[in-house]
Amino acid sequence: MTAPLHEAHPTSPGRRLPDTQQGMRRRNLSRVMHTVNAEGPLSRAAVASHIGLTRAAVSTLVDELIRSGLLEELGPERPGRVGRPGSALALSGRGPAGIGAEVGVDHLAVCAVDLRGEVRARAVRHGVNRGRSPELVIGELTALVEQVVAAAEREGLWPAGLAVAVPGLVARDARTVVRAPNLDWHDTDLGALLSGDLPLAVDNEANFGGLAELWLGEGAPRDFLHVSAEIGIGGAVVVDGRLLRGTRGFAGELGHVPVRPEGPECACGGRGCLEQYAGEEAVLRAAGLAPGEHRVELLAERAAQGDKDVRRALRGAGTALGIALTGAVNLLDPQTVVLGGALAGLAPWLLPSLERELARRTAGPACSVTVSRLGPEGPLLGAAHSVVRGVLDDPAAVAGRP
Amino acid sequence: MTAPLHEAHPTSPGRRLPDTQQGMRRRNLSRVMHTVNAEGPLSRAAVASHIGLTRAAVSTLVDELIRSGLLEELGPERPGRVGRPGSALALSGRGPAGIGAEVGVDHLAVCAVDLRGEVRARAVRHGVNRGRSPELVIGELTALVEQVVAAAEREGLWPAGLAVAVPGLVARDARTVVRAPNLDWHDTDLGALLSGDLPLAVDNEANFGGLAELWLGEGAPRDFLHVSAEIGIGGAVVVDGRLLRGTRGFAGELGHVPVRPEGPECACGGRGCLEQYAGEEAVLRAAGLAPGEHRVELLAERAAQGDKDVRRALRGAGTALGIALTGAVNLLDPQTVVLGGALAGLAPWLLPSLERELARRTAGPACSVTVSRLGPEGPLLGAAHSVVRGVLDDPAAVAGRP
Repeated sequence: MTAPLHEAHPTSPGRRLPDTQQGMRRRNLSRVMHTVNAEGPLSRAAVASHIGLTRAAVSTLVDELIRSGLLEELGPERPGRVGRPGSALALSGRGPAGIGAEVGVDHLAVCAVDLRGEVRARAVRHGVNRGRSPELVIGELTALVEQVVAAAEREGLWPAGLAVAVPGLVARDARTVVRAPNLDWHDTDLGALLSGDLPLAVDNEANFGGLAELWLGEGAPRDFLHVSAEIGIGGAVVVDGRLLRGTRGFAGELGHVPVRPEGPECACGGRGCLEQYAGEEAVLRAAGLAPGEHRVELLAERAAQGDKDVRRALRGAGTALGIALTGAVNLLDPQTVVLGGALAGLAPWLLPSLERELARRTAGPACSVTVSRLGPEGPLLGAAHSVVRGVLDDPAAVAGRP
Repeated sequence: MTAPLHEAHPTSPGRRLPDTQQGMRRRNLSRVMHTVNAEGPLSRAAVASHIGLTRAAVSTLVDELIRSGLLEELGPERPGRVGRPGSALALSGRGPAGIGAEVGVDHLAVCAVDLRGEVRARAVRHGVNRGRSPELVIGELTALVEQVVAAAEREGLWPAGLAVAVPGLVARDARTVVRAPNLDWHDTDLGALLSGDLPLAVDNEANFGGLAELWLGEGAPRDFLHVSAEIGIGGAVVVDGRLLRGTRGFAGELGHVPVRPEGPECACGGRGCLEQYAGEEAVLRAAGLAPGEHRVELLAERAAQGDKDVRRALRGAGTALGIALTGAVNLLDPQTVVLGGALAGLAPWLLPSLERELARRTAGPACSVTVSRLGPEGPLLGAAHSVVRGVLDDPAAVAGRP
């Protein structure tokens, strides 16, 4: 799988196609897809009025999208609308699908999402991946991908691309895992390990979680800091509806922001990083519990039962999160901070101390903190939806396939 | 001065004009201007080949820009080039000018920059502004602006807009100073105080400093964190060649990133903020010196002479900068950190401890740190150039004026 998946977002103006008729046509095809996605089902006339093109121009674009299997006609619109009834257009439920995959520390998961955003097939395998060879793990992942693709094809869909979420730093080539300490992987080229010929994009799980929040969160803002945890603590910075990736693709490493500069040593080489106070191991240690599987569920259960040690440990983690987030909020001025992944389930016991630190350290109104409804599902859904968004952003790129 | 200056950068794809012929023409006019700016003087044929349009299409665009006084013809190109010689095009030296202004804690400055980037007029007034009423200060600034505009007009230029740099937080309306603690200004509407009818944009001085670095720095990267100091410590985050502004326009507040969470109280409401260790007052106090004017020059002089107290104070400031920057680098993954403003002159004594902290706290290669060549000139030049960039980005918007 060596073909790079085109970026999940509109590229920046500097990198856009030249302003030719051909580039304009591709962007207008995308506008039609995005309009039907956001507002549909819609008649051709309604699409035309939304995007400010003539009815004739839109009809040509729509016909091309129907021929390519990206749009479908639902039949005449219900009466009651103004004007002659047109045939309502919807995104196709039998066209391309985004295949999302997640390599977790203790699970693998794959799903297929259609253009309408519905999960149409899914497969999960539980079991610890830490310390196993990338070849073995990716071999198992490939089997799950094949299983999900086959199920999707039985529903009349075809895979438009594969996006893989990993708990580690991913290079800007979108295929090399530079460092995933909780898997013990270094410089692992997933493009070489994955067989098949689907366009591939690998990304950090917190990034896909942040994108899921952007695309699927109800009333989600376009400027936010997404904080998530699996075993480590990850972050994703979304600015004006786009993920901030950084020069090497390593942006969002909130877990290694110094909280107490002379604090405990961290695997990253630093001291007193956020992960040393709010990472899973640190919280378990502070609560007097041993590491192991399903420890987040255990922490939530004990905290709900009123366990004093667990509650104190989570309060401490919330304080550390509040200190690190104060710095992040001062640098980024986001509209909100979203707690996702495993942190979402622990929010009731993290939030009071977290919000107290943010408020007492910020002049003026403190940044709001919200809890993700997607929780641990975010990264997998974000991965699959990134492929779907790629199709909406440039439908012409897949129009000739499969 | 109530007309808002259009954004100095291309707007994001989501906010662009619809893809009509008219929008395409405006963007292509901008491409011609940017190409001549980056590569000129150039013939029409060379411009056409750079931007991938036909010679005929480019000629129409160029003729319009010449009629509007934005481009001029220098006469036939020198021989030795391939093909029939064309007339070389250059940005006009007698067209629109950007007027930049700076409200410093102890000075006011104004300059006029032409489309070619040359400073054509300049005026400065020294004297403490802290604690004086905004009406008085802006009254004096207006007189300086009028003086500089008159001088520019004598050179055949006309003012395209006014950009004002202030040491404080500016709202996204680009006219209201929400908080400038070192001037003791709060919720001050500069749009109402400035007389005249030039399009106006007010911004934080560190933001304009960062933009100056982007536009004028030699070999400047497109992803960097600009750190500057006047009395406080400011920052500007530039991502992919664009300034990250934040939801309220407050992004880049590096001075209030917590360095030691239980450290001294800060005016912002927090504790142990970077400004408490590396701000001018903190450094003077640590060095056993009294506050006053021109203290940065005094610190540099004493440090150069080998004064142990001053060197220790600057080492401590460098350490605190390194801790705060580690967090910022982990979040943003910039290509480099640029020390600007007053910090540039103190770099020889700040850098060793700053770089040591960054290196020991970062796994893998640490982010590089460079020193701005613009130093304290950055914000004023950045302000004036932001107006010039606005003209390059949308020449059609000024083509009908003056």
